[in-house]
Amino acid sequence: MSKFFSEKYKGLTPYTPGEQPKERKFIKLNTNESPYPPSKKAIEAAAEAAGCLQLYSDPEAKLLHEKIAELCGVTPDCVLATNGSDEILNFAFMAFCDDEHLAIFPDITYGFYSVFAELNRVPYKTVPLSDDFTINIEDYFNAGGTVFIANPNAPTGICLSLDEIEKIVATNQDNVVVIDEAYIDFGGESAVGLTKRYKNLLVTQTFSKSRSMAGARLGFGVACPELIRDLNTIKYSTNPYNVNSMTMAAGVGVLCDEEYTRSNCASVIANREYAMAELKALGFEMTNSKANFIFAKHPCIDGGEIYLALREKGILVRHFTGERISQYNRITVGSREQMQALISAIKEILEEKK
Amino acid sequence: MSKFFSEKYKGLTPYTPGEQPKERKFIKLNTNESPYPPSKKAIEAAAEAAGCLQLYSDPEAKLLHEKIAELCGVTPDCVLATNGSDEILNFAFMAFCDDEHLAIFPDITYGFYSVFAELNRVPYKTVPLSDDFTINIEDYFNAGGTVFIANPNAPTGICLSLDEIEKIVATNQDNVVVIDEAYIDFGGESAVGLTKRYKNLLVTQTFSKSRSMAGARLGFGVACPELIRDLNTIKYSTNPYNVNSMTMAAGVGVLCDEEYTRSNCASVIANREYAMAELKALGFEMTNSKANFIFAKHPCIDGGEIYLALREKGILVRHFTGERISQYNRITVGSREQMQALISAIKEILEEKK
Repeated sequence: MSKFFSEKYKGLTPYTPGEQPKERKFIKLNTNESPYPPSKKAIEAAAEAAGCLQLYSDPEAKLLHEKIAELCGVTPDCVLATNGSDEILNFAFMAFCDDEHLAIFPDITYGFYSVFAELNRVPYKTVPLSDDFTINIEDYFNAGGTVFIANPNAPTGICLSLDEIEKIVATNQDNVVVIDEAYIDFGGESAVGLTKRYKNLLVTQTFSKSRSMAGARLGFGVACPELIRDLNTIKYSTNPYNVNSMTMAAGVGVLCDEEYTRSNCASVIANREYAMAELKALGFEMTNSKANFIFAKHPCIDGGEIYLALREKGILVRHFTGERISQYNRITVGSREQMQALISAIKEILEEKK
Repeated sequence: MSKFFSEKYKGLTPYTPGEQPKERKFIKLNTNESPYPPSKKAIEAAAEAAGCLQLYSDPEAKLLHEKIAELCGVTPDCVLATNGSDEILNFAFMAFCDDEHLAIFPDITYGFYSVFAELNRVPYKTVPLSDDFTINIEDYFNAGGTVFIANPNAPTGICLSLDEIEKIVATNQDNVVVIDEAYIDFGGESAVGLTKRYKNLLVTQTFSKSRSMAGARLGFGVACPELIRDLNTIKYSTNPYNVNSMTMAAGVGVLCDEEYTRSNCASVIANREYAMAELKALGFEMTNSKANFIFAKHPCIDGGEIYLALREKGILVRHFTGERISQYNRITVGSREQMQALISAIKEILEEKK
């Protein structure tokens, strides 16, 4: 740290993204990327946009907002596209949290929430998940602060029903509730429809997972026009051209190819169910994941040990060291072949352990 | 504004980007874009990267940082690429300004500096330019805060020499000096070399202007490794994957095509000199611009009137309403044909005025 670094950030512990190894070819099951290439329509649209890069991207993202609005069944003024969903989440921490509106989220969830809270120097409170890692929704009734819930939750994959989400939103009408639906397309039910009835609801989604566009950096928020206007005040004070024109075009492209997205999601779900059945047969305990990852531990081998043994065999998964979850690994659901390779590797590890 | 919007941002006035009209085809001389298409190497690299969008972009931007470092004659740990240069500027306001380190910049300069200061709620002081819009460098000696200087300055285009920049940097060794070189490639001399000798210097540049990549959103900072580490702490707490993979690839591509960039800059400079000579012959007064825009006023017609009359004729320029500059228009230097069209339109306007 230099002597010039502001005191206010000296205690900041940045988020640690999953490894992106360059030195060796791994089967990469550590950052919840899609095993499928992006839609041809996305690729073609991005390539075409590359020819006109001398012009700024549309700061209003008009076409993209219209397509997202169509997808979500809302009007375009209810949508804001961002540079990944991390950006819309950070904007929400900026716009809706302060000393009078603390941030509230589960103790085990997307690790960036606490970083955003610290970055924006807003107080936050974590609510422990139950022993089985489920969210007790009553913990969030009249929460007295801005609620952030990943649904499905990460890294557990456990999903709340739309009814449960609505109960949380309905009992917090004096505070904003943010539902982070990064993984919603793999088995959950989206709350975007509720934004038409609740003025305090912001739903965020990403093109990184189900739409195979992690490298494009595209996320968005859906809420009533008043909340979107607040978020736009932040955006236009931070980075008006936050989404580049290739990503914008690719986003419109992939939304013209919903059949491809739905087919990929179905494959991921099938591969998840396959891998979970195999892992169960091998003695693993798992949460009921509705995401594109599996959260698994084995009664006989330490989580960190499995992580290292898999790494040794060329398979990268993600191991978190948090107290309650250090026995688990979060394993991205890849292609069927990748899942088969994972199961084979784990069988070997279990054999070697005997 | 919703009832949920944090008190701390209620007074925020966002930056207003230049118009991006969709309804009509204008000759667009209002946002300092390049009149030339991006390098073929950039286009091809971006298109290729579009095929692998399912994977996250490299959060370390290794290849891109290496190429930028090579361009600037520094090591890669002295470089940080960002989502446009607005992002690195915002990171600098976050990292290096606070209640004890106010921000200091000219009263007439890039309009985003005051927005960043307000967004980050850091105090700031503006220093008046001289009557001829030049910066008096002595005003910045031992400035007692974090200095932001656009060089060339916007919207005047006036450039400080490298010697003058060094004097400001050398007399502020207890504070960071940020030199924003968005327009440096059109006639100024970059201060990147000074970062090797001064631990308090951050130089920012963009690929938006001279490299025809405004739509890709790519900027970067060059400084000593300690300052870059501070900025990385902010980046990894904000958006670790801040630059998408297509933009990263395009950035590497265009840096493999420096001859194209230099040739385009030479054309812009020639077109600027041509247009300035013509405007002078028509009675315009102009600053000595070393940027890809001209800052011009006419003794007989109001700046706002010229703006509107040009708009009527299908030519968009940028008119600012600030007290000292409302008689001027900022006119982007386009292709020779665009400059000829501008001059013809202005001749008509002057005729009609008679």
